[in-house]
Formats: sequence, C-alpha cells, structure tokens
Amino acid sequence: MTKGASISGFPEWLPSERAVEQALIDTVRRTFELHGFIGIETCAVETGASLLKKGETSKEIYLLSRLQDVSSDTHVPVEERLGLHFDLTVPLSRYVLEHSGQLAFPFKRWQIQKVWRGERPQGGRFREFYQADIDVIGDGVLPEHYEVELPLVMCEALQKLQKFGLPTALIHVNNRKLSEGFYRGIGLTDIESTLREIDKLDKIGADEVKQLLCDNCGATSEQADACLELATISTNDPQELTDAFNQLCQKHHIDRLSENYHLAEQGLQTICTIIRESERIQPHSVIADCKIARGLDYYTGSVYETFIEGASELGSICSGGRYDSLVNKGNKKYPGVGLSIGLSRLLSYLLKTIHATANRQSPAAVMVAVWNENDRHISNAIASTLRSRGICADVAPQANKIGKQIKYADKLGIPYLWFPATTESEQQSVKNIITGEQIEADPLSWVPDTLYKSQEIIINNTKSEE
Amino acid sequence: MTKGASISGFPEWLPSERAVEQALIDTVRRTFELHGFIGIETCAVETGASLLKKGETSKEIYLLSRLQDVSSDTHVPVEERLGLHFDLTVPLSRYVLEHSGQLAFPFKRWQIQKVWRGERPQGGRFREFYQADIDVIGDGVLPEHYEVELPLVMCEALQKLQKFGLPTALIHVNNRKLSEGFYRGIGLTDIESTLREIDKLDKIGADEVKQLLCDNCGATSEQADACLELATISTNDPQELTDAFNQLCQKHHIDRLSENYHLAEQGLQTICTIIRESERIQPHSVIADCKIARGLDYYTGSVYETFIEGASELGSICSGGRYDSLVNKGNKKYPGVGLSIGLSRLLSYLLKTIHATANRQSPAAVMVAVWNENDRHISNAIASTLRSRGICADVAPQANKIGKQIKYADKLGIPYLWFPATTESEQQSVKNIITGEQIEADPLSWVPDTLYKSQEIIINNTKSEE
Repeated sequence: MTKGASISGFPEWLPSERAVEQALIDTVRRTFELHGFIGIETCAVETGASLLKKGETSKEIYLLSRLQDVSSDTHVPVEERLGLHFDLTVPLSRYVLEHSGQLAFPFKRWQIQKVWRGERPQGGRFREFYQADIDVIGDGVLPEHYEVELPLVMCEALQKLQKFGLPTALIHVNNRKLSEGFYRGIGLTDIESTLREIDKLDKIGADEVKQLLCDNCGATSEQADACLELATISTNDPQELTDAFNQLCQKHHIDRLSENYHLAEQGLQTICTIIRESERIQPHSVIADCKIARGLDYYTGSVYETFIEGASELGSICSGGRYDSLVNKGNKKYPGVGLSIGLSRLLSYLLKTIHATANRQSPAAVMVAVWNENDRHISNAIASTLRSRGICADVAPQANKIGKQIKYADKLGIPYLWFPATTESEQQSVKNIITGEQIEADPLSWVPDTLYKSQEIIINNTKSEE
Repeated sequence: MTKGASISGFPEWLPSERAVEQALIDTVRRTFELHGFIGIETCAVETGASLLKKGETSKEIYLLSRLQDVSSDTHVPVEERLGLHFDLTVPLSRYVLEHSGQLAFPFKRWQIQKVWRGERPQGGRFREFYQADIDVIGDGVLPEHYEVELPLVMCEALQKLQKFGLPTALIHVNNRKLSEGFYRGIGLTDIESTLREIDKLDKIGADEVKQLLCDNCGATSEQADACLELATISTNDPQELTDAFNQLCQKHHIDRLSENYHLAEQGLQTICTIIRESERIQPHSVIADCKIARGLDYYTGSVYETFIEGASELGSICSGGRYDSLVNKGNKKYPGVGLSIGLSRLLSYLLKTIHATANRQSPAAVMVAVWNENDRHISNAIASTLRSRGICADVAPQANKIGKQIKYADKLGIPYLWFPATTESEQQSVKNIITGEQIEADPLSWVPDTLYKSQEIIINNTKSEE
C-alpha cells in the first residue's frame, strides 16, 4: 500500500517500497562505476543567479530563508539568495568551473541526488525527487563518440532494472543542429521558441502545436506544417533517415550548398553515427526521432528522451543531450554531454503499476530467539557470530513465548528463526519459518539457502491494478 | 587539497574526497543492515509546526518559498510553511505516527541523509551535513536492552571506520533520570535549564557554567557546586559509579527513601547495566559520564555522546538518547532510543587531519587503449567484456599517442592500461602503469591483482598537517 506523501508533492515510502528505491539506486550506481564514471555530490543549494541563468525552470525554484531573517530576506535580490537545485546539470557546471584545475578531462562523473522543483503538484508530479545523472565534460573539445556511448550506458542501466519489472526502454535521439538547420532553411528565425513548441507535441498534439508555432514563433501555416513534417521522421536505419530528411529539404527548397543545410547535415551525421553504433552494440535500444526537442535552452547537439514500452503516459524517464556552451569561463569552454534518469518517477511506476516490492521488510536473514532475558547475551553472541560472517541477523525484542517471537520475525519477513541451545548437551538449531524445515546448526558454519539469503526485489503478482 | 565550500557552510568535495565520504556511508549502512535495521528515507521538508515543536534548534531552520510566492509567503504563519529538516529524529517521529499501522514494532530503522541548519557558519560548522542514524521505536513499551545495544552498534560502525584512519571512539553515557533525581533532590526545580547549562561544560568550563546555573536556573552557589560535583563522576566500573553517586547523595542529604532518590536510582541502574554489558561485549567502548546532558529537551532516559581519541576539539561525533514522549498520538506512546553519527564532521576530520583519500579518482581498474578512432569499437568491446566480469573499465578518450593515453589513465589513478591486439596473430596485453609489468591477457579470464582491483581509501602520509 503506497502511502505516497503526507506533504503534497514530497514522496515518502514504506520500508518495502524504500527497499525498491535503494535497489534502483545501487544498481544504477554500479553500472556507472563499471563504466569508470566518478561519483560526486554537490550541495543542495545554488545561488539564485546560478539557478536563474539557464533553462525554463526559473518558475519552479524553492528559495531559502533562515527563520530569523525571514522578513528581511525579501529585500535581498533573488540572485543573491540561495535556492534548492532543480537538476544536477547546473550544479555540475559550477563544480567543474570551480575545480577545473583539480579534475582530469574529459571528466566523466555520475551523481545521484534529490532535486527540488517548487511547482504545483499535479498528475503525480513530485516536488522532491531523485535524479541519476551521468555526464562527460571536455576541456575545450569533447569527442563525438561520447554522444554515442552515454545513451548506451543508460540503456545498460535501464536493462539491469528489468529484473525489478521495468519494461524495455527505447532511447529516442535527435540533434539540435538538424532541427535548427532545417528551421532556418525554411525561413524561421526564432529557433528556441520553435523547439519549445515542438517539445509539446506528445502532450498537446499536432493541431495545437501548429497554432502555437504560428502564434509564438512567427511561422506561416506552411512553415508550421514543414516543422511538423520533420517531427514525423523516426527510424533506426541511417540510410532511411538520410533519405527522408533530404526529401524533405528538397520539398521545402533547402539548398544542399546552403549554410543551413550544412548545419543540419552535421546533426544528421551525428544521429546516423549514434543509431549505427547502437544497432551494432545494443540492437533496438536507440531510434532516431526528429520530434525530440527538449525544453531546456542549453542543448546544442544531440538530444535524448527515453520511453518505456507500454507506458507512454509516464513520459520520458531518461533525458539529456549535448551542451557546448553551458560551462564556460571567459574564452575557455567545457563542452559536455549527459543524461539523467528520473529515478523517482520510475520508482513510482514500478511500485504502482508493476507492484515491485521487497521480499521482506528487514534486511535480516535470521532472527535469534531469546529463551529468557537473563540469557539475552547468548542470543546476542550468536547474532554477532553470524554477522561477522556477513549474515544479517536480528535478535528477538523480548523473551516472549516462541509463537510471539515467530510472529514478529514473520511480520518483518525474516525467513529464519535461530534457537540457542537450552542445555549444554543440546545442539543449536535453525528453523525456516516459510518452509517449516528445522535443522541443527552452528553459527560458525551455517549458511542460509540462496533463496532466503538477502532482501530481494520481487514482483507481487497477487496485487491487482489499482 | 580540500576546496571545502564555495557557498559558505555548504561543503562540497573533490572526487577523491567524495570517495572517502561514500566509503563512510557504505560502511556504516552495511553495519546497520547486518544488525537488522530497516532503511528508510524521509522527505527533506517538514511543516514549520513540526520543526518548531521540540528542541533548541528553532533558530536554525531554513524555510522554503516558491520563487513566485516569495513576497506573499511572508504573510503565511511559520507553522504552516515548509522548512528543511534539521535532524532525522523529528522526521522519524512523524513517519512512525503516519505509518504505525504498516510497521512492525519494535521498529528498528537506519537512515542516512543530509540535514540543514541555517546557523551562521563558524568554526567549521556546516549548514548542510550528513547524519547517519539508528533508532528503535516501541509500541507502548520499549525494553531497556536497546539502550545497551544501540550504542554498541554505533561502536561497531565506528570501529569499522578505523580502517579509514579514525582513532578509537569512546561512548559516554549518562541518564536524565539520574540527573533529574539528583537536581530535584538538592532542591532545584528548573531541570531543563539546568541540563542545558551543564551541557556547556566542555565548551565554557566550570566557572562560567556555575555562573549560568545561578543566573538562569535559580541555583544557589552550593546547589551549583553540587551539580558540578555530579558532573565530575566518570567511570566504567558499575560499583565505583554507584558508590560515588551514593556518597554525593549522602553529602547533599538526599534521602535514600525519597522519590527523588528513587528516580535517580532508576537512571543509575540503567547506566550500570549499559557499562556492565558493554564491558562484556566490547571492553573499553562505553564509559559512564555524569556531565553528559544533551541540549535537546526530548530525552527522558539514557543520553550518549561519543568522543574520539586525541580530537576533543571535534566535539561529540555520535550522540543520542532515549525519548519516551517524543512520539505520541493521544494516549498512545511510542518510546524510542537512537543515536546519530555526524558523518560530515567525521569526514572533514578524516580529510583534513588524518589525510584520508582515495587511492585513485576513478573507480576503473583498467583503461582500454584505442589505437585509432576507427577501431574504437574493438576497445569498447574489450571494456564491455571486462565489465561483464565485474571489472570497472574505462576506454581512452582519444586515439592519441600511447604516452598521452597513459598520462590520462595516470591522472585518474587507473592502474592498468589494456592494449588491444593490432594484428590478428598478436595477443592482447595489459600493463600495470604503477609497476611497469606488462603481460599477455585475455579479457575473458584476466583478473587484476587484489592490490589494484578496487578504489580504496588510504592514508596519505606524505601530506603534512595543514
């Protein structure tokens, strides 16, 4: 039973649900480390100036006030105040600039932290949630191969989450240069606005987007139609992509020798490389999709969104892109590319729709019974021996009747109950509460069955759709 | 080189420093899980009403405002606003009440999260820091043995941190009942204020505390002296403790048959049990110390503070106590006992004084070289094979001269460089950059030397005291 949140938008999980979240975090982190990404954390706050610099999220910032400054704080300009970070990319860009002298570039980092957005919670949107990010930042240059490899690292991470019930994920890739070259080629000039409206396609549909393109981006009806036509191109075949794009350029009279075509072609080639390499390494994991735009202004090259099979209502669960101008200091540029998994949204889906849960609330595999309180130290010593061998062990809270002790272990899902010897000649024994099997056992050598050893994530198939 | 914090009071660590923090967190978490504690997380915010209810920390709260409500928010009563949690005990108490129907009691939980305090940063105090907490909450009753066991779990966790350079820790235990019985016995009535002043002993010394007791707690000079005398009792011998306390009672005419002595005696017996059991299980890990008071109002029984050898300036690094009245709903009480490690303060000490660091920045054990960009997929495939066998592997960022590739691996501290075969007849090989040894190797079977396999925490003895 998902309690969700007692403070609207701030999710909180029961122990078995939290175990799923912890398993997601551990699994994703392990994948990042296997690929040589370096873990960092940034502080939860940034200056208002830093938070307001980029992107569309300015409305969603939480500002902080110290309780005793609460009335005077309103006179401090927002730029000088502190606010909670709304993503992990803006903090990374500050971190890289601050520590550039002490980092090795390209700097590959992973970061899994909570972020906060002060939006009005609606449709299951969270105000506090986990993001799991990987980024690679170059010093001056950043080889294109990272634009191929980073989505595949995320693919691998998401594949590993399939054991928790996550359906197959498909990464959709586009490139801002392709979009911009095409938009300019048909005569549009407000590229940022056009991308922002195209980004709404999945939410509001083609008719409304067309209207917005005409109203907000200075597009004629024909220009808007051309943008929508581009957005329909989607394939995992590089040749098919190239042909479709070139046909569209021809139809809309974009000269192959023009600067705009040249820009678009750079983007086209990058997408082709990505889908070609992806097909070779992890077939059917990445697809070209020219409607992918991303709301944030700072992307300059590849952009990614990820959808999972049969859950389009969930939206993109892993997004990102290449940004060449987000991180810079004077003339020095640090181009980057990165993706971010919306871990809390994924978790919520796994809990509510897939019914992922822990096989038990407690990490303990064994609970040691206590015959009477004076002998508690005997039970403690047994538990201690088991722990020293890596077996998670609890001790019964009270020297109750054994039935009560079993009931407590059972409520926590602890599979084994350990019985200390009652006389010197007696052997110790351990009972599997689930199977009922009881055997003599020595805490120095006994091992639990693999099936019952660890807290594991399972799918609770007995639960019906909520 | 510790950068510390670019935003005052909000620490941020370089990759090698963050690796130490991550190792602390992982180690402590593992200990908690081995003991059967259940991991939960609570959201970062609580209502002002909840934050202001208990303790002395009200001044230190950070309140939140959504950017667009920033001017109207000041008219909302603080109780109805949201603030960042300043510890993990207040959130736990709310969590337990909200979910009591779905938890098994006694509820043993661990929780490692950041907390925030809006105080003016001074003397290395952090405004954002990690706490690592364990608590046991009972339904109605809570057996005393948890007051013995919880400090010992923390002891075990702190002992495991010794491999990262942490000196021996000693847990000091007192009991509020003992203090209260004694204070009342000598005629004092404002127990909370008296405890609060006694808590300042280590910081400001006996003379100033005496003055404060007289000024703020209605104590006469003799009463203040008696309080200070009690505060000097410290021993790990139950008999010695009992004798010393009884002598002091006799001296100050506290009748053995009085209610006050009876209250004090309950506390005395609990302390005796704790030090007796501790001596048996982990000798020299816990000591009775009657000056331990704790600033927070909600403690009702045992109170703990922990100091590490040779670092008194650090203050207590692990504190807590028993609270019988913090968590309750109507007539229903949920007594609890818990301790909290100040993980960030510990980390700061390990980094700055002990010079703990990671043996390498990158988690990768191997970097696979790239002979030319067209063959990058060969290097990627080798790395992929290594990863599938649990070996963290990176791939060279560019097909530079091998010297440059070695330099990059070296900067990240990656010990092995892998050379793909250049012809079909050639064998692959792997070079240990540190020892210079190079051997033929197959990614399907090669294993790194134990010494170089994982990112490890080491003490950098070449660094002098800062």
